[in-house]
Order: sequence, then structure tokens, then C-alpha cells
Amino acid sequence: MALLAGIDIGGTNLRIGVVQGRQVVAEQRMQADFSQLCKQLEPEQAWQQIVDSIATLIRQMLEQYPQIDAIGIGFPGFVDPYTGFVAQSPNLPGLHHVDLAGDVAEAVGRSVIVDNDALAAAYGEYQLMPLPVAGLIYLGLGTGVGGGLVYAQQVLAGEHGVSMEIGHLIIVPDGRLCGCGNRGCMEQYASASGVAISYAEATGQQLDAHSIALRATSGDVHAMAAYAQAGAALAQGLAHIVKVVDVAHIVIGGGMSAAWPLMRASFEQRLDADLIPVLRGKLQIRLSSAGDQAGIIGAAFLAGARSGN
Amino acid sequence: MALLAGIDIGGTNLRIGVVQGRQVVAEQRMQADFSQLCKQLEPEQAWQQIVDSIATLIRQMLEQYPQIDAIGIGFPGFVDPYTGFVAQSPNLPGLHHVDLAGDVAEAVGRSVIVDNDALAAAYGEYQLMPLPVAGLIYLGLGTGVGGGLVYAQQVLAGEHGVSMEIGHLIIVPDGRLCGCGNRGCMEQYASASGVAISYAEATGQQLDAHSIALRATSGDVHAMAAYAQAGAALAQGLAHIVKVVDVAHIVIGGGMSAAWPLMRASFEQRLDADLIPVLRGKLQIRLSSAGDQAGIIGAAFLAGARSGN
Repeated sequence: MALLAGIDIGGTNLRIGVVQGRQVVAEQRMQADFSQLCKQLEPEQAWQQIVDSIATLIRQMLEQYPQIDAIGIGFPGFVDPYTGFVAQSPNLPGLHHVDLAGDVAEAVGRSVIVDNDALAAAYGEYQLMPLPVAGLIYLGLGTGVGGGLVYAQQVLAGEHGVSMEIGHLIIVPDGRLCGCGNRGCMEQYASASGVAISYAEATGQQLDAHSIALRATSGDVHAMAAYAQAGAALAQGLAHIVKVVDVAHIVIGGGMSAAWPLMRASFEQRLDADLIPVLRGKLQIRLSSAGDQAGIIGAAFLAGARSGN
Repeated sequence: MALLAGIDIGGTNLRIGVVQGRQVVAEQRMQADFSQLCKQLEPEQAWQQIVDSIATLIRQMLEQYPQIDAIGIGFPGFVDPYTGFVAQSPNLPGLHHVDLAGDVAEAVGRSVIVDNDALAAAYGEYQLMPLPVAGLIYLGLGTGVGGGLVYAQQVLAGEHGVSMEIGHLIIVPDGRLCGCGNRGCMEQYASASGVAISYAEATGQQLDAHSIALRATSGDVHAMAAYAQAGAALAQGLAHIVKVVDVAHIVIGGGMSAAWPLMRASFEQRLDADLIPVLRGKLQIRLSSAGDQAGIIGAAFLAGARSGN
């Protein structure tokens, strides 16, 4: 059975896992805030440090498991699926068109496959479904909202690597200003940042999404309303998605999915309203069961698939 | 070279074409208004007449071309890609879950493949592109707005056969009431019916889209505004689509695409505004060159592909 390595790059740390079958058999992590790095250093220096960090983590794992067959990275940014170049990353200001696959491969002396992180998570969730499915829509709720799509057993990265940029589906014309330059993007309502904005608009208080969730469970009506708004916004986005690609299985993951009970009722109500009639009652929506291992497993499997393992 | 037959079912007539290579080498048509039929007759009788009409046209063509290898139908409705059943059709009130592929096959003594009509048109346009492309988004502007998607050389019908129900992307929350029961669907603005509504709202006059186009070319500002609104609405919908599936080539067809010069400026302006920055300037948008043959060619090719010809 092939031994694969998957790397997941989060907001504050970097994780590598060795995957065999559908299990993570070893995992290591390293503190790293790439976003901060890009703000503090010149782009060239920041990039060198990013490549060094990833390469160090891979080298350590290769020492323990030299028989690793393929190495995959799930990266938060616009990844060209053919070249492994990162065109741009909202989390890495200043970096443009960097050769992530090439530079890491050179540093570790092994070929490396790069995919978008939400796409990797989607493929991980797809692999981990309790029963096999043909396709899967992954909705990742975090600081923003990302997504990944598997259709007919294949990941659908997109011709420029930017399929499922669902956080930027415009659901409120002339709504809240988004980092992408547009207004009313779904992630301005359905993400952790969106919940914080909704709560601040209603109360004037700046709290993070986690604190707002605690208040909501204690009966704070504005906190409950902020999460209900997030649930409805996510449903509006999902209705758009399934009007474009008709896929039955949807998995919701990411850090903010822990607050799903606060979003669920408004999500279901809005989704049912917005769907075309023929799809009502046909979608199977579940929370991620892989938690933060989906990205590692997906990146590893994608690398395995491309290298023939 | 395989000889394939494709059937296209329009609002007022039924057409069959014999396709060889990428050419329609023979074509026949028959007057038939299936929608009217469904309103006048009981569902069972209406269905029998629909099957008879399609079968008659196929039989006539088979007499002339007995060597036809595969027969495909592009049908306006929700088609199950696995069984050839039509779950429902907005144009055929009263009919539910009818066995189109099975009933026509029994009547003509040959196996028949059924696909959604806009999907067939998408595949036809894909086959007819002057240079080969990996994927294609087809936007069909008529009484409603339909669409079809080709990705990585494959048509993406959807797990319930309802991918690309893009006429029902909600672009105006609480907007115009749509036949699907929702409000603000794209086709209430971007279709021929939508243009008529926009013009009626502005002037109180009930005119069809063609008459409004004539007025627009004569400088009627309300007519120009109705088409500009249609262009902007279509762009909003397309921006949604490419945020879900990142495909570079877009073809605009259908009867109303003849009025494209009246829609183009507002379409381009709105699309550029709504796209994620990394895709700006990367989409290649063209008008259909196949005209009303795209549906025939696509249905024929899809049937050929599934039957191994």
C-alpha cells in the first residue's frame, strides 16, 4: 500500500501527515504564520522562508519515512493545477506567480504536487465518505469561505485553478465591502469574519466568532441572529452552486463548522426556499468527520493519484 | 466515419439532422407544439402524441439512412442522464417521470440517448469550436435562459441531470416572481421574457423582445435600457458560474443572442466588475457560430460517444 505525504498550511501552523490507506499514520507540525511573514519581509525573503519551512518539515518526515511515494501540498491560494505555480494568495500579500512546486521540489530533492487547500480538503472528505459517492461539494467555513468540488470521481480544479471561489459569490448586491474589491460576497456574511461584522453592526461590540458563539448559546439574541444570518448566507451560496453543478453530497467543514447548530435552522430554511423544486429534499448535507485531517489526506491522495500511486 | 442522428425539440417544431463529421448532411423538420399539446390533452394522451411525433421523424430518417449508428435527443426538461427518463419539463405541464428514451426506442426499434437540450447545444458548440478547447460554458438565451457545461472534454449533466439550471440563479433578492416559485431568477431579466417585462415596467407597453430590439436600434431609450439590463443580468449569472466552475471559453447562443449588440456593453462592464480579480481579462466570450444546428450536432455526438461511435 502506497505511503503518501500530505501538507496542510493553516493560518498559524504547518502540518505534515504520512497517509497509508485512509489513515494518517504519523503527523508533525510547525508554528508558522506565513501571512505575518509576508507583511514583515520583502516578497523575495518571505518566499524563501516559506519554502524553507515547508522543505524542512518534508525533510524531517522523509528521514523517518524514506519510502514515501508521493508528496502533496494543499496551499491557500490560486494554484495552477498544471504547473504548481501559485498565481496569488489573499493570505500572502505581495507574492505573485511563485513556483511553489518547483522551489520546494528543488529544496527536498523530490517532486511535489500542489493543489488549492480547499480542493485538497474536498478530496480528503470524498475519500473518507462512509459509503462511496460520485461527487462531493465541500464548504469550508473559516476566516473566509472556501470550497472544493469532486465530480464523477475527479477533482474539478478549474482551467486557471480557481473553481469554487465560492466565498466571492455575490449574494447581497451593494452589500458589505469584500477584500476582493466587490460588495456583498458570501464570505462577508457566512464566515467567522462575517459573523463578527454582523454582531458588531447590531451591537457596536467587536468580538470574535468564537466569543459570539458562546454568547449565542447563552441566549444573546444578536449573537444568535449573527449566526442565523451566516447560515442563510451559506445556503444562498450553496443554492447558486448546485444550480451550476448538480452534486448531491455536501460536506461542511472548517473551524467555524463547530458552530453549526447555531446556523443549521436558518441554513435549511433558506436552502429549501432557494433550490429549484426538482432538487428539494435531494441534497445530503453532513458535517465533516475528518476534521482537520481532511486537508492532509486529500493533498496526499491527490499527489498519489497524479504520480500513479 | 460514423453516421449519427440528432433531434432538437424547439418551441414550435421538431428537427432531426443526420451528422457526419461535424456537418449536418441531411435535415428534416415537423411542426409540433408540445407545450400546447400538454395544455389541451390529458397527460397520457399528450405523451403518446409526443412519442409518436418523435418516432415518426426518426423512422423517416432511418428509411433514408438505415446505416445511422446512434440516435440522440436533446430535450427541454430535467433528464436523468443514466436512465433517459424526463423527471419534469417546464414546457410540458402535467408530465412527470416519463420514459422518453425507452418509449421512443420501443417505437423505432433502435436504442436512443436523451440529454437536456441546453447540454446538447453546449456539446455541439464544443465540437464546433475553431480550435480545440478543454471546456466550454454555453449560455442559451431564449424565452428562458438555459445552459450547458463541458469540462475536461466531458459534459457535466449532474447527478440528477440538472446542472446549469442557470436561469434560476437568484440575482435580485426579492425580485421578479419566476415560474419556479422563487423571486429574482436570472431569466426574469436576461431572457426574451425578461426584456419584455423590463420594457413593460418602464413604458406600460406589452411588446415582444424582437419588437423591443427594433425599437432599441431606432433609439428608444427604454428599449435600450431593457436590453442593457438583460446584459448586466446575464453577466451577474456568468460571474456566479465561473466562481463555481472555472472555465475559460463561453459561447452565447439561443434566439435572443441575435440582439447581442444591444446587450454587450452592459454585459462586459458588469462581468468585469463581478469577477474575482484573477479571472479578469481571462474569459473568452463568443457568439454561437452553429446557430440552431448546435443542438442537433451535440445530441448526435453525445449519442455517438455513449454508443462507442
